[in-house]
Amino acid sequence: MNESKQAHDRKQESAIEQMNSKAKTKKFMFKFSVVAESSETRARTGVIETASGRIETPVFMPVGTLGTVKALCPEELVACGAQIILANTYHLYLRPGVGVIDLYSGLHRFMNWKGPILTDSGGFQVFSLAGMSKITEIGYSFRSHIDGSSHLLTPEDTVLIQKSLGSDIMMCLDQCIAYPAERKAAENALELTTRWAERCKEAHRQNEIMDQALFGIVQGGMYKDLRERSAKSLARLDLHGYAVGGLSVGEPKEMMYEMADHTLPLLPEHKPRYVMGVGSPADLVTMVGYGADMFDCVIPTRNARNGQLFTSIGTININNARFKHDTGPADPACGCYTCSNYSRGYLHHLYRCRELLSYRLNTIHNISFYMRLMQDMREAIKEDRFNAFQRDFYNRQAEFAIL
Amino acid sequence: MNESKQAHDRKQESAIEQMNSKAKTKKFMFKFSVVAESSETRARTGVIETASGRIETPVFMPVGTLGTVKALCPEELVACGAQIILANTYHLYLRPGVGVIDLYSGLHRFMNWKGPILTDSGGFQVFSLAGMSKITEIGYSFRSHIDGSSHLLTPEDTVLIQKSLGSDIMMCLDQCIAYPAERKAAENALELTTRWAERCKEAHRQNEIMDQALFGIVQGGMYKDLRERSAKSLARLDLHGYAVGGLSVGEPKEMMYEMADHTLPLLPEHKPRYVMGVGSPADLVTMVGYGADMFDCVIPTRNARNGQLFTSIGTININNARFKHDTGPADPACGCYTCSNYSRGYLHHLYRCRELLSYRLNTIHNISFYMRLMQDMREAIKEDRFNAFQRDFYNRQAEFAIL
Repeated sequence: MNESKQAHDRKQESAIEQMNSKAKTKKFMFKFSVVAESSETRARTGVIETASGRIETPVFMPVGTLGTVKALCPEELVACGAQIILANTYHLYLRPGVGVIDLYSGLHRFMNWKGPILTDSGGFQVFSLAGMSKITEIGYSFRSHIDGSSHLLTPEDTVLIQKSLGSDIMMCLDQCIAYPAERKAAENALELTTRWAERCKEAHRQNEIMDQALFGIVQGGMYKDLRERSAKSLARLDLHGYAVGGLSVGEPKEMMYEMADHTLPLLPEHKPRYVMGVGSPADLVTMVGYGADMFDCVIPTRNARNGQLFTSIGTININNARFKHDTGPADPACGCYTCSNYSRGYLHHLYRCRELLSYRLNTIHNISFYMRLMQDMREAIKEDRFNAFQRDFYNRQAEFAIL
Repeated sequence: MNESKQAHDRKQESAIEQMNSKAKTKKFMFKFSVVAESSETRARTGVIETASGRIETPVFMPVGTLGTVKALCPEELVACGAQIILANTYHLYLRPGVGVIDLYSGLHRFMNWKGPILTDSGGFQVFSLAGMSKITEIGYSFRSHIDGSSHLLTPEDTVLIQKSLGSDIMMCLDQCIAYPAERKAAENALELTTRWAERCKEAHRQNEIMDQALFGIVQGGMYKDLRERSAKSLARLDLHGYAVGGLSVGEPKEMMYEMADHTLPLLPEHKPRYVMGVGSPADLVTMVGYGADMFDCVIPTRNARNGQLFTSIGTININNARFKHDTGPADPACGCYTCSNYSRGYLHHLYRCRELLSYRLNTIHNISFYMRLMQDMREAIKEDRFNAFQRDFYNRQAEFAIL
């Protein structure tokens, strides 16, 4: 080895050391603090701090599957009160692919959304969308639902993909099971989910990821003791937050409520608790009472595109002929862009004509409705009147049902 | 007749007189003035004043067929630089119907657009869309393209419908003919169009319409002498503006240019000259040189929805695979919302996924491109360098064709 080679090696080693020490001293960009708790329910309000900004909880995350919350631009999301959005790893991995997103150093710049992003792990989509999916200890083998191409998705892959997406919160790969499921199948799935969570955590550590939190997902089907086992094993991994997965997979609503009610208190108290894929306004009001901090669901956006609007006086379908001559706003109690500028009659006309603006105006209204509902709940918790808030909400629901 | 009945009648008569005198003294809300003329071409720039605001000419009017410029909200149109939009009488008459629009005292409040609106007469849509349409001296009998219902549209009807729509500029009902057409058919259509224009003018007068201008439409097929006859007969009616109709109906491009070039100078000099249904950016640049002041066309909006973007370096189709990894803006010379915030790669991704945001971002860009082109032409005319502007434009076009 000549001198110059030695010098070069020393230089390189020193550069690597510097890089490592920099990574070690870099502060991890995620924090959760509970600000107030309800004295009569398990509801709580708090703040999550991420690399892309603060989130007040309980929070609802609009779904932006393919790097766009359908029909809205980022400025509209902000105006609606959205604090964080969800994007789907499975979908973005297939289209446009990690190679494209890498050119923008992540999803934020690609889609022009500056706030926090949570990405799921892709597990649920492989379970529900992909063809010929096969699960082994290694991960998921599956065929794309778009072009039938073959793919392998391991726990390590999902961490690396989400690292590329640059989400502020990433999720561990989990095995979701259908309802109903045999106890043995549910047990196997939860055990595999735990082993995969360990591998995800290790990949997260090895890649020295400092600005993206990693959440675990509790499985266990509709078996309370399995949910307990799953929650306990995952808690040991000391992840940054925990989600209740495997709900809304076809079980009766009461069973979903029972499982969420049972599982949420099993999750570490000082970490955010996230109920995945839920739900209707009533679901959110109920589950915040169980102690849930985070939600995501396609209901406000998808239903908007089907003409269904959530309002303070019940749910309406704007396609209904009775709105043709209605010059009032979609929701008289709403101050969103749609309700401030357009009538039910105009929204009815746009929807009947399948005009593109219809989907946008309906989505703006529904997202605003959801955001205000969460805001109202946060205030009710802070003022310790969440129990009364829930009662009022259920009473109004019952009234609308009669109308 | 008792005393109280007499008193009531006197009161009513006096109210009617007051109303009439008010209408008579009310200033008519339309004015056109030429601000500058090109010394080498017939291009000119001017200002149209309407009840809903000023318009600088030459102007391009984005098409808002059903009371919405597809994919855009009014604030976006303003941000793109749109000064006036076009809406379609035939479409709005069928959906949502005049009864609905009347609840809002016109289209402006219904669709939340505060600027000027021009409505066509419905003649062209009956010609191109409606089923089983039959033309008589009275008007058009036709069947709705939506539900097959039977309708009669007379010149008087079209004025009353456009009065309800509350547009700032309404058009006379005309008879459009296909290309090619026999001389006799073209002659009959132009004569009928003239008689209908007389009836439209009379209906406009009888209804004491003070805040909506009435434009006539020159027909005559591809026969120069017939175009001349049509222009002269209509000029005698002293309408508020004149349009060249019956172009872009299948004739060769050179013939369209020839007819426009021939017809435009025949129109009254001190009234706006409008070329209906035209055109591409090159068409606009050419026809402004012929002396055209106003245009409308679906090209920028429809092509946007098909992924075609107009840029300063040629027309691109965003669906093309070469844009997948392109992190630059759609048009480096453009400052629109789309080009300021999103890359070609993102637009390509949205278009490939048929995301709703794709249609909006593409439309914003194309409308901005058209608006800037018109703005550039107005400036070139003011500075009397329009001839050079045209030469540059055509040279650049030729360059792109090679690229």
